[in-house]
Amino acid sequence: MVERVKTGIPGFDELVNGGIPKRNVVLLSGGPGTGKTIFGMQYLWNGLQMGEPGVYVALEEHPVQVRVHMKNFGWDVKPYEEKGMFAVVDAFTGGIGEAAKREQYVVKDPDNVEELVDVLRQAIRDVKAERVVVDSVSTLYLTKPSVARSIVMQLKKVLSGTGTTSILVSQVSVTERGFGGPGVEHAADGIVRLDLDEIDGELVRTIIIWKMRGTKHSMKRHLFDITDKGIVIYPDKVFKYHK
Amino acid sequence: MVERVKTGIPGFDELVNGGIPKRNVVLLSGGPGTGKTIFGMQYLWNGLQMGEPGVYVALEEHPVQVRVHMKNFGWDVKPYEEKGMFAVVDAFTGGIGEAAKREQYVVKDPDNVEELVDVLRQAIRDVKAERVVVDSVSTLYLTKPSVARSIVMQLKKVLSGTGTTSILVSQVSVTERGFGGPGVEHAADGIVRLDLDEIDGELVRTIIIWKMRGTKHSMKRHLFDITDKGIVIYPDKVFKYHK
Amino acid sequence: MVERVKTGIPGFDELVNGGIPKRNVVLLSGGPGTGKTIFGMQYLWNGLQMGEPGVYVALEEHPVQVRVHMKNFGWDVKPYEEKGMFAVVDAFTGGIGEAAKREQYVVKDPDNVEELVDVLRQAIRDVKAERVVVDSVSTLYLTKPSVARSIVMQLKKVLSGTGTTSILVSQVSVTERGFGGPGVEHAADGIVRLDLDEIDGELVRTIIIWKMRGTKHSMKRHLFDITDKGIVIYPDKVFKYHK
Amino acid sequence: MVERVKTGIPGFDELVNGGIPKRNVVLLSGGPGTGKTIFGMQYLWNGLQMGEPGVYVALEEHPVQVRVHMKNFGWDVKPYEEKGMFAVVDAFTGGIGEAAKREQYVVKDPDNVEELVDVLRQAIRDVKAERVVVDSVSTLYLTKPSVARSIVMQLKKVLSGTGTTSILVSQVSVTERGFGGPGVEHAADGIVRLDLDEIDGELVRTIIIWKMRGTKHSMKRHLFDITDKGIVIYPDKVFKYHK
Amino acid sequence: MVERVKTGIPGFDELVNGGIPKRNVVLLSGGPGTGKTIFGMQYLWNGLQMGEPGVYVALEEHPVQVRVHMKNFGWDVKPYEEKGMFAVVDAFTGGIGEAAKREQYVVKDPDNVEELVDVLRQAIRDVKAERVVVDSVSTLYLTKPSVARSIVMQLKKVLSGTGTTSILVSQVSVTERGFGGPGVEHAADGIVRLDLDEIDGELVRTIIIWKMRGTKHSMKRHLFDITDKGIVIYPDKVFKYHK
Amino acid sequence: MVERVKTGIPGFDELVNGGIPKRNVVLLSGGPGTGKTIFGMQYLWNGLQMGEPGVYVALEEHPVQVRVHMKNFGWDVKPYEEKGMFAVVDAFTGGIGEAAKREQYVVKDPDNVEELVDVLRQAIRDVKAERVVVDSVSTLYLTKPSVARSIVMQLKKVLSGTGTTSILVSQVSVTERGFGGPGVEHAADGIVRLDLDEIDGELVRTIIIWKMRGTKHSMKRHLFDITDKGIVIYPDKVFKYHK
Repeated sequence: MVERVKTGIPGFDELVNGGIPKRNVVLLSGGPGTGKTIFGMQYLWNGLQMGEPGVYVALEEHPVQVRVHMKNFGWDVKPYEEKGMFAVVDAFTGGIGEAAKREQYVVKDPDNVEELVDVLRQAIRDVKAERVVVDSVSTLYLTKPSVARSIVMQLKKVLSGTGTTSILVSQVSVTERGFGGPGVEHAADGIVRLDLDEIDGELVRTIIIWKMRGTKHSMKRHLFDITDKGIVIYPDKVFKYHK
Repeated sequence: MVERVKTGIPGFDELVNGGIPKRNVVLLSGGPGTGKTIFGMQYLWNGLQMGEPGVYVALEEHPVQVRVHMKNFGWDVKPYEEKGMFAVVDAFTGGIGEAAKREQYVVKDPDNVEELVDVLRQAIRDVKAERVVVDSVSTLYLTKPSVARSIVMQLKKVLSGTGTTSILVSQVSVTERGFGGPGVEHAADGIVRLDLDEIDGELVRTIIIWKMRGTKHSMKRHLFDITDKGIVIYPDKVFKYHK
Repeated sequence: MVERVKTGIPGFDELVNGGIPKRNVVLLSGGPGTGKTIFGMQYLWNGLQMGEPGVYVALEEHPVQVRVHMKNFGWDVKPYEEKGMFAVVDAFTGGIGEAAKREQYVVKDPDNVEELVDVLRQAIRDVKAERVVVDSVSTLYLTKPSVARSIVMQLKKVLSGTGTTSILVSQVSVTERGFGGPGVEHAADGIVRLDLDEIDGELVRTIIIWKMRGTKHSMKRHLFDITDKGIVIYPDKVFKYHK
Repeated sequence: MVERVKTGIPGFDELVNGGIPKRNVVLLSGGPGTGKTIFGMQYLWNGLQMGEPGVYVALEEHPVQVRVHMKNFGWDVKPYEEKGMFAVVDAFTGGIGEAAKREQYVVKDPDNVEELVDVLRQAIRDVKAERVVVDSVSTLYLTKPSVARSIVMQLKKVLSGTGTTSILVSQVSVTERGFGGPGVEHAADGIVRLDLDEIDGELVRTIIIWKMRGTKHSMKRHLFDITDKGIVIYPDKVFKYHK
Repeated sequence: MVERVKTGIPGFDELVNGGIPKRNVVLLSGGPGTGKTIFGMQYLWNGLQMGEPGVYVALEEHPVQVRVHMKNFGWDVKPYEEKGMFAVVDAFTGGIGEAAKREQYVVKDPDNVEELVDVLRQAIRDVKAERVVVDSVSTLYLTKPSVARSIVMQLKKVLSGTGTTSILVSQVSVTERGFGGPGVEHAADGIVRLDLDEIDGELVRTIIIWKMRGTKHSMKRHLFDITDKGIVIYPDKVFKYHK
Repeated sequence: MVERVKTGIPGFDELVNGGIPKRNVVLLSGGPGTGKTIFGMQYLWNGLQMGEPGVYVALEEHPVQVRVHMKNFGWDVKPYEEKGMFAVVDAFTGGIGEAAKREQYVVKDPDNVEELVDVLRQAIRDVKAERVVVDSVSTLYLTKPSVARSIVMQLKKVLSGTGTTSILVSQVSVTERGFGGPGVEHAADGIVRLDLDEIDGELVRTIIIWKMRGTKHSMKRHLFDITDKGIVIYPDKVFKYHK
């Protein structure tokens, strides 16, 4: 019997037969504006509602902005941070600025993956995290693609070693159909792709699960929306590209 | 309730549910001749009419030419400069030439992003700017794409730190369908794309909003024109590429 | 009369006229999520059931995970390891970590192909291996494609020299239609390609045998499934790409 | 009221609402054999007929050949050179050869853009040039694309600083659909593209104006011919690519 | 009257008007699994049957494997080696290994083209070779494409200098439609392309003669098979790609 | 009145309004097997029949082979060499070998363009050449594309300086649709393209004149054949690519 982690994202768990298999490291890949960050935040928030602590690794945005961004969706993480159930790892500011000084988990040199891994491990231990989101992993190797795989491998060892079920956000260019390069794609236990495509003059949002180790999963491309409550996936609406 | 900044560009605010969410940093991407510069100038001019001061960072044109260019559309910024409501940051001349000596905000070394950021911050403070346009951000990393993301990140910190709502003009080649590379695309809070396409022997102008953090927005591609009063967008005219 | 090794994978042996010709080094190529690792594990497990010892070279996953992964399909290799019929070569941990210390075949420096070859040769000798799976060979030259061919050649010499029939897993990007580059493709005795394609909004799994030295083989593309018992190929279901 | 410079090229001025806006720097882009050089020469010759002096910067051909080439179309510039109304800047010979010694404006080191700019500025002053053609600007950065934008910027400063209305010939490869790269395309005030395409076994010549700062312009692709009197454009014949 | 060398490959000589013109150096190009090696071996074996000695240069496989491989098709070269009519040049082992010590023509350093050429020349002289196959020439420049042409030129000088009629096997990637790069393609006297394409879910083998100096040749694409007796070409079965 | 050089190639002169304008430097571009070398040889041979001396610069083949190759078409140049009307410049052997010692015009270091130019100039003077063929110019910059334009420019200066009408053979890859790169394409006075395409399973030969300075020319793509008398072009048979 596979242990599963429910994302709580409407429609998603149904696509993976009940939830993401525990300890899986899932690559969440997509172009700009596809909703990757929202997906990650929603995954963590829903965990908190189910009593599962979580850690968000902020590489793209100021931790303060992360909390504001979540609150805009009605996801107020402050109380959970105070209860010691949630942590933001600040891999954005480098510890510079007033606001940064109030952060508990700061990576001084965000280019130093070893330091990032150490701080992350500490945060996971402190909050007894069961869920982790790294947003984004691409930032770590944007200018040095040759080390992409080894960085993902390092993260994977920490994440699966600590027993968490985690999401690595992978940013790809709007014109790229891949998931982030061969080294990254093959290292992940799961691959979820979010797409935003212009079809007949209109932007359409779809999701497809390309791979999910340890479980059956939907083999279809599904429509989804971004609402002011977060992401809503429609398991019954299958989308086909017409050529 | 999201605070919004009205662009005043006919048709545009309607597409973003009333205006650009305050503090957003919007990437305005397009090929040559698509109207990016006009869009940016119109955004600033309309701000001045609503009592919102602004700063234009000139990286592509001589500040004198910028003022002439705006005046050609009937947007005479001189009085606003005198009132201390508008400033042009000269990141073009390097301070060389007679005309440059009369500029107040001069970046001596336009290749030095730190200096640019300092001068920009000063100009924002002086005029109490609420709107900023950087035209273009691409110039800053044209010959060093590997630092594109870090430059955009630096700008973003200043711009959102000072509370302005800003537009970063992103120049792409006529044949490129992306928005300026993965590092840049994902860093922006919003992405607006202007297109100029040859359809059946005729050039057609369209706009699409790919992403706008903090608000619903049109998910369609709309036609627009460049008139002698500036840009006019037609929210009701949706354009579909035929293949 | 060609000597053959039966893979035991439902449907596969039929496609190669009864089995893979003995001593062949087969490239198993495919994108992420196509089932390459499962294919390799199933090949080794079936060998054990037929009394043919095997070695799995783990370059992508912790040896402990490899055993868990196999067990999830009902393939418990522990008893066979104890009987000296099966070995995992650990080219993943570098010998670091508690679990790694219990491994018998450890490659200290996974970047050192000579060491890998030495450890592999020892494991083959010890268990008298008739089957070997290297998962994946791509890892060995991911960041140095110019040495790909020479690495594959080195492995090939050991593998065919020791008389084993082996599978080299070749990871390609999801968007790549090749098999792993010219140097690798031409060095292998056989090429099997696993594909995962989105067709009309649905993911479809297919297999095609591009090359198999020493035997006739199916010249068609066949559908297959990944079940909780492993891979099942449908020799009678031919798949055609529609354009 | 926009001041305009009439090209005098049959059909062209009609496409730009009466002429090129004064001081514009226009990129004239096209593949081999599209008629860029003829367009530039015709533009200068017509200027001379209207009493507007001009300068031709020869980077591709010997100045002697330039004069012969023009004369073949009936455009004899000798008398105008003698009257001090026309000059050829020799950026081809490097001053080597007998014929070169008789040239007045010689760039000793054509790779030295500063020298080119100095000689060009002198020639413009001497003949009181109102029109300049640089044929081709691509030659200046063919082997160093990273400096393309800065070279075009340097030229632009001289050309618009001296009040001339000028054409920069941009050579692109026969297979390239761009105009000369992002740095160059965005720097120009106007972009005119000449095309030569094989349509149903026949070569067809077309022109399209992609961009022209300061004026309305045709948004269509027009047919044109190269006759023994030079270029003739057909404003009424619109061409559509069929796919 | 052109002197010709009969390949003896069923159907092939008919395509080249009776045989390959003597002294021609033919590039045999194709992706993995297309049958290039079999074609080369069959060409040499048939020569032996007609009393024409030959040399096979083994760059991809152990000489022992080469002989086994040939024998599998019923082509036992041992007796011919003993008679001094056939030789294998070992450019594979570097002289390392027991089996290699029994080889007569060994290239100690296969990366040293000069040495290869010397050994090859010796072998040609010893057996009075009229046919030579180099399998593959691509191996010689796989990691240094810039010297491809000069290597092919060196080989060509030896081969045509000694009066042999020879085949250079050129490996291309499965996705590449070229023949091995411009330097190589133009250097050869003839180009024969073997293709393996997936058409409607089925692999199809075809051959086309792109170029053959000194003779008329078929201008069509023909079907062929690989049987247990070698290659059989069907001059009457023309294949057309449908798009 | 334009002076013209008749090629004498059946059908060709008709396509260029009577002949190639005197002094033009024509790029003859095509993939392998398209007939470029034959075209060049035929052009020189026909010149000799009309009393116009010529020079063939051999960069791809041994001078001895060049003469044999020509003789195979019935073009025996020996008597013309003896009369001092024809010369082969040997830029192939480097002066090495017995046969090379009998050559009169030898370029010791074929990589040294200055030496090539000197020897070529001498040969032109000696035979009072009116026609020159360089086969191929691509060889001179195959491994250093950045100097392609400057090499072509150097050749052009000698060739037009000496008053010859010449053909530069430009080799492109079978998959490349260009003519040899932007630097080369724009430098030539004329561009003739030979094509060999597979259409419905059959190879088809066509010629198109892309550019010819100083004359009107056919704007169509024409069929041609290679016969045992050389090239025959069919001005009345126009070829259209069907897509």
